[in-house]
Amino acid sequence: MKVRIGSKRADFRTVSFDENLNEVVLIDQRLLPHQFELFRSKNYKQTARAITDMVVRGAGAIGATAAYGFAQGLQAFRGSGLDQFEIQVERVYQTLAQARPTAVDPVNALNQIRKLLVGGKTIREKQTIAVARAQHFADEDVHHCEAIGRHGASLIKEGMRVLTHCNAGWLAFVDIGSATAPIYAARDQGRKFHVYCSETRPRCQGASLTAWELAQESISHQVISDNAAGHLMQRGQVDLVIVGSDRTLGRTGEVANKIGTYTRAVLAARHKIPFYVAIPLSTIDWNLKNGLEIPIEDRAESEVLGAWGVTDKGKREYVRIANPTSGALNPGFDVTPAELITGIITPAGIFPSTALWKNRTRLSA
Amino acid sequence: MKVRIGSKRADFRTVSFDENLNEVVLIDQRLLPHQFELFRSKNYKQTARAITDMVVRGAGAIGATAAYGFAQGLQAFRGSGLDQFEIQVERVYQTLAQARPTAVDPVNALNQIRKLLVGGKTIREKQTIAVARAQHFADEDVHHCEAIGRHGASLIKEGMRVLTHCNAGWLAFVDIGSATAPIYAARDQGRKFHVYCSETRPRCQGASLTAWELAQESISHQVISDNAAGHLMQRGQVDLVIVGSDRTLGRTGEVANKIGTYTRAVLAARHKIPFYVAIPLSTIDWNLKNGLEIPIEDRAESEVLGAWGVTDKGKREYVRIANPTSGALNPGFDVTPAELITGIITPAGIFPSTALWKNRTRLSA
Repeated sequence: MKVRIGSKRADFRTVSFDENLNEVVLIDQRLLPHQFELFRSKNYKQTARAITDMVVRGAGAIGATAAYGFAQGLQAFRGSGLDQFEIQVERVYQTLAQARPTAVDPVNALNQIRKLLVGGKTIREKQTIAVARAQHFADEDVHHCEAIGRHGASLIKEGMRVLTHCNAGWLAFVDIGSATAPIYAARDQGRKFHVYCSETRPRCQGASLTAWELAQESISHQVISDNAAGHLMQRGQVDLVIVGSDRTLGRTGEVANKIGTYTRAVLAARHKIPFYVAIPLSTIDWNLKNGLEIPIEDRAESEVLGAWGVTDKGKREYVRIANPTSGALNPGFDVTPAELITGIITPAGIFPSTALWKNRTRLSA
Repeated sequence: MKVRIGSKRADFRTVSFDENLNEVVLIDQRLLPHQFELFRSKNYKQTARAITDMVVRGAGAIGATAAYGFAQGLQAFRGSGLDQFEIQVERVYQTLAQARPTAVDPVNALNQIRKLLVGGKTIREKQTIAVARAQHFADEDVHHCEAIGRHGASLIKEGMRVLTHCNAGWLAFVDIGSATAPIYAARDQGRKFHVYCSETRPRCQGASLTAWELAQESISHQVISDNAAGHLMQRGQVDLVIVGSDRTLGRTGEVANKIGTYTRAVLAARHKIPFYVAIPLSTIDWNLKNGLEIPIEDRAESEVLGAWGVTDKGKREYVRIANPTSGALNPGFDVTPAELITGIITPAGIFPSTALWKNRTRLSA
């Protein structure tokens, strides 16, 4: 997508690979929305650390980062024999797989690449396979998001007011994003509309990342407090809700996503506002039979008790908001039942939330 | 209520009057929850400024502050003739009435006192009337809150988890509060329970003020993000919701309160969790026929785009959270329809939200 730098606009992917310098290039998300900088990782260890340190976040984006990091680590091999090369393969694989242990996307990407390496006969061949496959993995992520946009764009009609939650945007993927894909596609088709970004406490990814993305792309938008969604719906000021998902149960159509998603779904149902969830196929879980089985991460109390921001002197600071002697409860995700979801927008089309299982052949990643 | 100062606990009202020094004494709410200090206002102009500058906020609290300020201004009169005294009456009245122009409580309090002044024959008598009436006004506020607590306490059973929103607590009144009155009364009756304070973005009065109050009173509580209420209700972790109200329509039972109240009412209805609104009688509006006629204040964008808090160096700072080039929409209140409200807790008893008009004789302030 396009980023404004001074008076110019240039195209950037969240994650890319500089083959000449053997560097993984990331939009540094720790500095956003206050500062735009590229993080150039010089070697696979730095790339793994960038995943750990949240230079890059979001399922699609860290999957691609791990894939590129794998290729980068193998390209840097300076030894001779294949045996030595295999040791390097395992070393790089383990380092990147352990960068964020609970995430599944990096491991999926690494497994895909490692499996293909056996097809190469020489070190050079194996290196070429790794780079090509990492590139393919990243491009595929983009193509999936494009397909989500193609299917979802027609939901956004001229003049609509669209509510989003959190950031399932281009910064969470290699490019384009899931929940934002229909927004960018509708804009490309020439339609004008307005987006409300729920700020998404406690980490405020809506106010910081989604609002930043939409500003770069010159899409009309405003940040609202999480409390304001109900009032706006009641006054007829929201026409459509689109959110992302961390995990969607293929058997039941239940959607686990950032805390507050369920609340928006309940409000949308009351006001008969269409509520859509946009997902890449890789996030469908075909095993779990009940949303209550999805583990809900209890996150750090400090997230709720304060906030990160930038002072008027430009300094990044955490400020304590809450009473200093009080604690907090901070569930990170919630689960929205299928009955509240109008449809699931996937790269393979839009499906009723209750019809995923029936369509599992078309929806298998 | 009791405030912890070091290892001791002492009783404080939010607003009181030191007759000997002719000073209005306020808990300085600009410093809470990070610092507890009393603000001693030396004259009526300072008292008016304290209302303007939000040293004190909340309908009941600013009403009593204006009443005391009126008495304070008349006590300070050093002239002789009654004519001169009448000029002072008007001067003090106008200064205090204009301290927060949109608030009705200060004007109500001032009108009550001014009306009674005619009953005094001498300056001394009029001064005595003003002080006595201001004291009466403040005590009455406390008695009303006590009555709300008496009626509401039985709603809170042993072991319950109670959700609140914003601060309709003792800091918003002279003492005890409205939404918090049943909480303090149930505690006084020896019951143990847990309170979730919705942080209440954008100004976070729940995280800062309500949590501070409950901590002073040693009531078990946790702060939650506004997004977490739905998830907790879905998992059966909320048994009761009690909120306050800025304006309740006597004809329809609709309740205008801090933004986010409506969302909690919708969620509570879905999960069949009792939803109560605690109010003093003075906030019932017997004229308006439709909640849509209630003007909803659009507040400053900066409230949503950032937050006030305290850095680890103890400095109070505003930090910008949102993307610097994005704007915000910030409605300050919302309106909850009667159908979502289980009951209205008043000093005169608990009434179904749809039965206020039928009981208007008992509910007239």
